[in-house]
Amino acid sequence: MTSSPDQELSHVDKDSRARMVNVSDKAVTHRTAVAEAWIQVGSEIAACVKRCGGVKKGPVLSTAEIGGILGAKQTPHLIPMCHPLILNDIQVRAELIEDRIRIMAEVTSDGKTGVEMEAMTACSVAALTVYDMVKSAGKGIEIGPIRLLEKQGGKSGTWTRSEETV
Amino acid sequence: MTSSPDQELSHVDKDSRARMVNVSDKAVTHRTAVAEAWIQVGSEIAACVKRCGGVKKGPVLSTAEIGGILGAKQTPHLIPMCHPLILNDIQVRAELIEDRIRIMAEVTSDGKTGVEMEAMTACSVAALTVYDMVKSAGKGIEIGPIRLLEKQGGKSGTWTRSEETV
Amino acid sequence: MTSSPDQELSHVDKDSRARMVNVSDKAVTHRTAVAEAWIQVGSEIAACVKRCGGVKKGPVLSTAEIGGILGAKQTPHLIPMCHPLILNDIQVRAELIEDRIRIMAEVTSDGKTGVEMEAMTACSVAALTVYDMVKSAGKGIEIGPIRLLEKQGGKSGTWTRSEETV
Amino acid sequence: MTSSPDQELSHVDKDSRARMVNVSDKAVTHRTAVAEAWIQVGSEIAACVKRCGGVKKGPVLSTAEIGGILGAKQTPHLIPMCHPLILNDIQVRAELIEDRIRIMAEVTSDGKTGVEMEAMTACSVAALTVYDMVKSAGKGIEIGPIRLLEKQGGKSGTWTRSEETV
Amino acid sequence: MTSSPDQELSHVDKDSRARMVNVSDKAVTHRTAVAEAWIQVGSEIAACVKRCGGVKKGPVLSTAEIGGILGAKQTPHLIPMCHPLILNDIQVRAELIEDRIRIMAEVTSDGKTGVEMEAMTACSVAALTVYDMVKSAGKGIEIGPIRLLEKQGGKSGTWTRSEETV
Amino acid sequence: MTSSPDQELSHVDKDSRARMVNVSDKAVTHRTAVAEAWIQVGSEIAACVKRCGGVKKGPVLSTAEIGGILGAKQTPHLIPMCHPLILNDIQVRAELIEDRIRIMAEVTSDGKTGVEMEAMTACSVAALTVYDMVKSAGKGIEIGPIRLLEKQGGKSGTWTRSEETV
Repeated sequence: MTSSPDQELSHVDKDSRARMVNVSDKAVTHRTAVAEAWIQVGSEIAACVKRCGGVKKGPVLSTAEIGGILGAKQTPHLIPMCHPLILNDIQVRAELIEDRIRIMAEVTSDGKTGVEMEAMTACSVAALTVYDMVKSAGKGIEIGPIRLLEKQGGKSGTWTRSEETV
Repeated sequence: MTSSPDQELSHVDKDSRARMVNVSDKAVTHRTAVAEAWIQVGSEIAACVKRCGGVKKGPVLSTAEIGGILGAKQTPHLIPMCHPLILNDIQVRAELIEDRIRIMAEVTSDGKTGVEMEAMTACSVAALTVYDMVKSAGKGIEIGPIRLLEKQGGKSGTWTRSEETV
Repeated sequence: MTSSPDQELSHVDKDSRARMVNVSDKAVTHRTAVAEAWIQVGSEIAACVKRCGGVKKGPVLSTAEIGGILGAKQTPHLIPMCHPLILNDIQVRAELIEDRIRIMAEVTSDGKTGVEMEAMTACSVAALTVYDMVKSAGKGIEIGPIRLLEKQGGKSGTWTRSEETV
Repeated sequence: MTSSPDQELSHVDKDSRARMVNVSDKAVTHRTAVAEAWIQVGSEIAACVKRCGGVKKGPVLSTAEIGGILGAKQTPHLIPMCHPLILNDIQVRAELIEDRIRIMAEVTSDGKTGVEMEAMTACSVAALTVYDMVKSAGKGIEIGPIRLLEKQGGKSGTWTRSEETV
Repeated sequence: MTSSPDQELSHVDKDSRARMVNVSDKAVTHRTAVAEAWIQVGSEIAACVKRCGGVKKGPVLSTAEIGGILGAKQTPHLIPMCHPLILNDIQVRAELIEDRIRIMAEVTSDGKTGVEMEAMTACSVAALTVYDMVKSAGKGIEIGPIRLLEKQGGKSGTWTRSEETV
Repeated sequence: MTSSPDQELSHVDKDSRARMVNVSDKAVTHRTAVAEAWIQVGSEIAACVKRCGGVKKGPVLSTAEIGGILGAKQTPHLIPMCHPLILNDIQVRAELIEDRIRIMAEVTSDGKTGVEMEAMTACSVAALTVYDMVKSAGKGIEIGPIRLLEKQGGKSGTWTRSEETV
């Protein structure tokens, strides 16, 4: 786990209150973030999804992609401490891989703060959209893991998920 | 996995297009849904979260709870095929359990359609809120599983996650 | 034109101010509304849309359908004098017919007020989504007409567009 | 029609999936877009609208203008593939011209992507607001055409609707 | 002040955590709430507002009324512990009274929970809209008081502000 | 009162219509605004609030802070003539001072237009959140005054509330 033992939580002030991080002094840089979410649909639902449009273009997967794109744009209105941003691009891809669906989201911005939360939110909303559309065939389906794969830009530079953190 | 092999996906029509489910003929019944989400924060962040407010009431956990409640109310605007509903109650609880945070959401409604998606969305937004607030201390943190625990009301009656689906 | 010469505008009060219509005394009835929108894309863009997925299921048309469904749910937040409602169903269909795209939306509710605006808004947002996705190939494309085709339920009962109003 | 026969649709990728356009490499330029929408209200409703406040300032027209301004700001949340933007100005004007109402919207921004959709959305929401407020006097009223009149800024420079495209 | 000394705060649970109030067991009754907000604009801005449209129908006042109506509909998305509702009516009136502007909002619903927050939010957003539109002429303007005047329906029945609470 | 007698209202055009202010020609500068809101809760509710978490960190106050932060981000969607912005920071603090609750909000941006409305809206939504959470113990509670304390940046430079305007 890549935590920093001595680091304070940036979103908690010295009085133990939640706060936003003031990004006034950060530089505007080109920023990207890539995240993924998995939905464990099982073999029978996987067959259903495949039958109704194939592993890439069926209505479940394409609706999830659109839900994810719109969801990414709602990030600052959903996540209390996130900054409102302008975004250059949001790509969301949903794909059936054996009996799991994988969502991958890549978000790009030029700004003072990273777009990790936009990528994570895109993945989450896309995964919820899949769950909604297949739950009639299996309420027990699980979403997860949802996790950041890569982050570029800003003072902390490039971060890539290493094998041991996976 | 509780899928039904012969069942069509209710949100896909015979032309393989996404669609909402028409609930006009469903009865108004009392409905509840319970879902949970886990965030694997690791021991060092867990210590941070504990230091800044304890396992139940710190700012990370209380902000996540509020984010989850507001998120649940956005469900029909986030998830394309969900119906706009009125809700009787949304309870979201975030708790630190060893080195993981557990979100639990219970949503209650009197209506023609279930509230599983509201409970799942509450959990997802609460989990994203946690991730946002602790990511400065560990970008590699994973969210998941997010899953339904229980559902009551409607024609299909009560469903409870069984051990083997966990 | 089906206007009523002596009728006051229900959304304007006697001081000439805009107002909502109080529906407290209206009965809860089953209500539906059907509307349509046309986009005049021209033959070359029509060929493009057809090439990238056919007349029914391509990404332009399916994205428009999803945009329209989500748009319908935003009606009370977009149209100042509209009431917040719960909806039973929203069906949006986009289809390429020769060199025009036709959007058709049907909205269903049990409530005190009609769902014409939800159907009209679904059509409008779907049409704007089409315009957005094909405008790189022809900014001059026109949207219109957008119009109600049918309305059922409520005190005024069933209304169907007659030939002469088309 | 100003379509380009050989041009791919920018919002559809090579796998025939919907996508946003990545504007990372575009220059920030001053951008404006002007669009219009017409509502064919007919002579009797036109008289109503005129009676309750004149051709420029009555409550139907002023409510439509405000609805249009707020609608423009919702563009990225309504139109799936639109980018979230900051805007310098949104002007919306509704006017009664004989037995039709004309909405005109002009949107201005400094950014990497055009504001055509904001102008088109402002016109559409304003037109829907008019429809909502006069529909009690004539459900058969039609909205349309909605169309772009002018666009400035960005790589493609100035575009003006020519007579033949009208 | 009408407080109840022994009463627990309904929105705080026994662990001192914020929570929504579960209204499942409440009866659906007809409910109304009336609230008001005052903006102390001063004599010179009052003259401005009067000059540009009179004390009832000018653009500042009519824009505030529309802002207030739309704001009321956002109540459950703004106020964390509020329930999503359907509403029968929202009336907002802004009027210039000497050198103050008075907003009055009346909200009506049939539901399990009161609409005080909708009326209070309508007043607040309308007052903010006024402030926004006149602040160029006087940043020092104050909003307040904002307060409930009357409430009907539900178990607690009718409540009316008494002189001593004013 | 700091009004300017000869000044036109910037949000009203020469035809007495509401309008946004075009900020295209304004410089991007660093901007901050500080506002406050007071809620007169009375001594008994003050005791309640104190009992359930102290004067700084209880659930009423922390929920109000989060409501205020999220509310500030909704400013352009609530206040018709406000511009959509990106924000660097939103700080909201709620504190119990004797028998009143004081909300203070500070908003920071780099942009072409000020953030007074974001600070005022944060205060208003936070105050409404407090009212919602304590109203079961006293519906008669009043919100106000809500007012700007300070503004920096832009052509008009720094403005600070002087004693006489308080």
